[in-house]
Amino acid sequence: MINIKEHATLSILNHSCAHMLAQAVKRLYPRAKFWVGPCIKEGFYYDIDLGEAVLREEDLEQISKEMKKIVKENKLIKRKELTKQEAFTLFHEDPYKMDLIENLKDDEIITAYTQGEFTDLCHGPHVESTKLLKHFKLLKVSGAYYKGDSKNKMLQRIYGVCFESEEDLEKHLHLLEEAKERDHRKLGKDLDLFMSDDLVGRGLPMFLPNGYIIWEELENYIKRKERKLGYAHVMTPCVGNVELYKTSGHWDHYKENMFPAMEMDGESFVLRPMNCPHHMMIYANKLHSYKDLPVRIGEIAHDFRYEASGAVKGIERARHFCQNDAHLFVTKQQIKSEFKAVVDLIFDVYKDFHITDYRCILSLRDPEDKEKYHPDDAMWDQAENELREVLKELNIEYTEEIGEAAFYGPKLDVNVKPAVGNEITLSTCQLDFCLPSKFHLKYIDQDGMKRTPVVLHRAILGSLDRFIAYIIEETKGVLPLWLSPVQINIIPVNCTYHLDYANTIKEMLREKGYRVELDVRDEKLSYKMRESQTRKIPYTLILGDQEQENETISFRRHGEKKTETLSQTAFVSYIQQKIESKDMNF
Amino acid sequence: MINIKEHATLSILNHSCAHMLAQAVKRLYPRAKFWVGPCIKEGFYYDIDLGEAVLREEDLEQISKEMKKIVKENKLIKRKELTKQEAFTLFHEDPYKMDLIENLKDDEIITAYTQGEFTDLCHGPHVESTKLLKHFKLLKVSGAYYKGDSKNKMLQRIYGVCFESEEDLEKHLHLLEEAKERDHRKLGKDLDLFMSDDLVGRGLPMFLPNGYIIWEELENYIKRKERKLGYAHVMTPCVGNVELYKTSGHWDHYKENMFPAMEMDGESFVLRPMNCPHHMMIYANKLHSYKDLPVRIGEIAHDFRYEASGAVKGIERARHFCQNDAHLFVTKQQIKSEFKAVVDLIFDVYKDFHITDYRCILSLRDPEDKEKYHPDDAMWDQAENELREVLKELNIEYTEEIGEAAFYGPKLDVNVKPAVGNEITLSTCQLDFCLPSKFHLKYIDQDGMKRTPVVLHRAILGSLDRFIAYIIEETKGVLPLWLSPVQINIIPVNCTYHLDYANTIKEMLREKGYRVELDVRDEKLSYKMRESQTRKIPYTLILGDQEQENETISFRRHGEKKTETLSQTAFVSYIQQKIESKDMNF
Repeated sequence: MINIKEHATLSILNHSCAHMLAQAVKRLYPRAKFWVGPCIKEGFYYDIDLGEAVLREEDLEQISKEMKKIVKENKLIKRKELTKQEAFTLFHEDPYKMDLIENLKDDEIITAYTQGEFTDLCHGPHVESTKLLKHFKLLKVSGAYYKGDSKNKMLQRIYGVCFESEEDLEKHLHLLEEAKERDHRKLGKDLDLFMSDDLVGRGLPMFLPNGYIIWEELENYIKRKERKLGYAHVMTPCVGNVELYKTSGHWDHYKENMFPAMEMDGESFVLRPMNCPHHMMIYANKLHSYKDLPVRIGEIAHDFRYEASGAVKGIERARHFCQNDAHLFVTKQQIKSEFKAVVDLIFDVYKDFHITDYRCILSLRDPEDKEKYHPDDAMWDQAENELREVLKELNIEYTEEIGEAAFYGPKLDVNVKPAVGNEITLSTCQLDFCLPSKFHLKYIDQDGMKRTPVVLHRAILGSLDRFIAYIIEETKGVLPLWLSPVQINIIPVNCTYHLDYANTIKEMLREKGYRVELDVRDEKLSYKMRESQTRKIPYTLILGDQEQENETISFRRHGEKKTETLSQTAFVSYIQQKIESKDMNF
Repeated sequence: MINIKEHATLSILNHSCAHMLAQAVKRLYPRAKFWVGPCIKEGFYYDIDLGEAVLREEDLEQISKEMKKIVKENKLIKRKELTKQEAFTLFHEDPYKMDLIENLKDDEIITAYTQGEFTDLCHGPHVESTKLLKHFKLLKVSGAYYKGDSKNKMLQRIYGVCFESEEDLEKHLHLLEEAKERDHRKLGKDLDLFMSDDLVGRGLPMFLPNGYIIWEELENYIKRKERKLGYAHVMTPCVGNVELYKTSGHWDHYKENMFPAMEMDGESFVLRPMNCPHHMMIYANKLHSYKDLPVRIGEIAHDFRYEASGAVKGIERARHFCQNDAHLFVTKQQIKSEFKAVVDLIFDVYKDFHITDYRCILSLRDPEDKEKYHPDDAMWDQAENELREVLKELNIEYTEEIGEAAFYGPKLDVNVKPAVGNEITLSTCQLDFCLPSKFHLKYIDQDGMKRTPVVLHRAILGSLDRFIAYIIEETKGVLPLWLSPVQINIIPVNCTYHLDYANTIKEMLREKGYRVELDVRDEKLSYKMRESQTRKIPYTLILGDQEQENETISFRRHGEKKTETLSQTAFVSYIQQKIESKDMNF
């Protein structure tokens, strides 16, 4: 979706449309007072004080009509410069505007824009006349506290968007509709995957049984992959002593993203934002020889980060999440081969999820700005070259971003482009020359000398929670068979005559490890089949006389109208193959 | 192990022995000052100020010798009553004793006990003469802060124990040795199962790869069992809004066991001590019909509780742990059948772990003390009778404890008697009439009325962490095959000639899902085999010419000297059977 705020023409258009919205509201609600009406990446909004009135979606239609009138009136939009005193006089009836003016610097040029009877305080710029604002749409209305502070008055915030042509607008609205349909929060609720409740705490979603099945499948999937590659998994507590984060440097550099500390029994504890320090301590617990390296420590690890309550979004961005994290402790000589193994794993996993729309970014240091980076030129040069070489050897396209490396080393990020919304970083592999030193990590090298290992931080699925949000939005909730919470729904044509056979099939499938339900409710067959569709269950089995007699299985794939019939054995090997191949289609 | 403090004769004996210890120390270190020397459940100790001197284990021998002399001297122990002023005069050289005297009430009878040249302030009583203290043993010495406050001076604390006969003492020392050998903290370290570090935080153990394998096996084991019984698993965050615990009542009644709250973004969060509130919210998320009940929500759930740093003990008692928790939401009519299913599950699990030494306790309310309990006589009577009936039907011996029920309902605890240490409660099933009301939980009954479900709180393995500690101590770390972190260790007789065959066998076994290691280090065969024993690996494979030629496997079971040879197929089916049967022997 386009970022309107950052689009030169559209940002002016949308900002102007916000004024037209205010003008229309003022005509319909003469006592309305106006706070701010900025352009945002989704379009524009205006925060309006309507006294006690609370706008409903229906009211937006009337306001839209009035806006259309203003378009037809083709009002010219005129700019005027004011002194602070003039501004005070002009807006003396509106306390919100007075507040804005008061906070302006004395020597600032103040401007107002007038269109017909309506004048608004504004930096501008704006379009020339209201007729250019024809292709707009008001999207929604919600409450918003004055200055975002819940102690203040609740204002009415109206959102809208404006384009240059009707075609562009339609295209955008279609995308919005699509985004709404794919929104993992909506699907998560519809499919009973997870829930949130303010009593549990904002930004603390809970996985319901259906959601936890997906979570568990992903956990087992990635742990199996990692184990084959020689990773050893650990379990560490999501709390640590503050001293641990002072040692790692998080307390100095990352504190604003952390929950506050808890003082207890003479110690100060804090919920961890990441797992590196715990894993460093695990490495440090033992003497290591060069023969033991690489040591690969993995964990599906619980983390907590502070996110503003306005920024939390379902399981995509929450205050609690689980990272598919690992730390590889390697010698300098092993950087290349281990980095290659990580890149291989990333694309092996993407293949399983049929992820093809991604972009690799190699973040390097800026050699001109050495102060920003860990000071070891040779190490940086070697590492950066090796990472490049691996990507070339693997024939992977990538872009280099100079100056985007972390303080502690270069990194590879893999960003994916979701069906809706902006690019997100899914996987990462970061070289770290610093943390191992901070924790005094060592290994005994071949020559008997103690050396410090290099650490590769890596995450493949990123956060499991966010990955689930991503995969839900990609598939519109129609998950591949192996991830589906309910894989097979059995509907007996008649709950008396066909129940025994249905039960036999259910037990046979359950015994084989499939997730099966049997619908014996006193409802019509057609109703049950529709519901099976709505619940996005991959296979719906319809078992009646024919099936019972011939010991067969008739089934419908999700999203299809035709019914197929197979022998029991053929059906089982069919779905088994679908699961093993991780097919996205049924 | 006997609780000496609570044993009438032994407590006097040990307390007297503490005095004799002090007398011996005073003879050897004339400037010694004495703080307190109480009898404790393990025997006695004395906290002594030796100036800058730090005692080592070797010094205890010399002190023991001096104590033996005092035994031979057969000093009579004489009691004398003192006024506070007389006490001050008598002990004016010892600031610690002065401190004690100052804190006595003015009208308290103060007594001192004298044996030969040594007099100590003491309530008594004591034995008549030092010859009765012959059968003692000094156990260890450690630092202890004066009054337990780390800001104060560090004193020397000497521990000992005393018995009536040499035989009793020997028996006790043997038990101590046994306990030390079984101590899960020692075994956890020796076998690389888990670690602790003050930098991570006291009471926050971390599971190392070997330990996590056990943890994961247990997690999968119990989840599989529960799933078969219709449980649905969820994942909920280990943090909640304080309001959640106000609603549940934990904030009022359980706060002293909780971590302190964290204020953030206008909300107050707290680490959870148990999972009931989260599970109540999950039930409340949906409308339920009587047809949906019982709803069984399970979770291997992360919890945090405040434990004094002196009370934490490895993974047996930590500040972070994971409960094998579940909440069953049932109708009144389902209490009996669900309780029965839980009891069945408990003993089914115990069978798998070969736990036979347990005791069932049915905790009932005290009908005379109704104020203490949830007020619903009919409900209590029904519930208590039904629990009794189930236990009788299942032919389970149990004891009833009147007045031991929780406020919210009767409960069954199952206590096990470990190889060392005191009885612990492993499993529990608690009826709850209250929490469902506090969260306004409802279901629509057959007659269309809204009714409140009853909740069964239950835990089978208790906390996974403590269960692992228990099973380690029971087995002395020789875990059954299915739980062993490394199941098979392969040693090629010659790392050049037999390496290929060893690798083939390793891959074959790994492919089948067994946890296998191959020892290719440049060490002697006998050394490797000894180490395989020390690491308590169930099967050590020795592969040489014979095996390579005949494609067989020669192996030793842990703890045995004899080597057996089997065909590859026979070996695989042999260990497969051991795993499936959860055999405790190899």
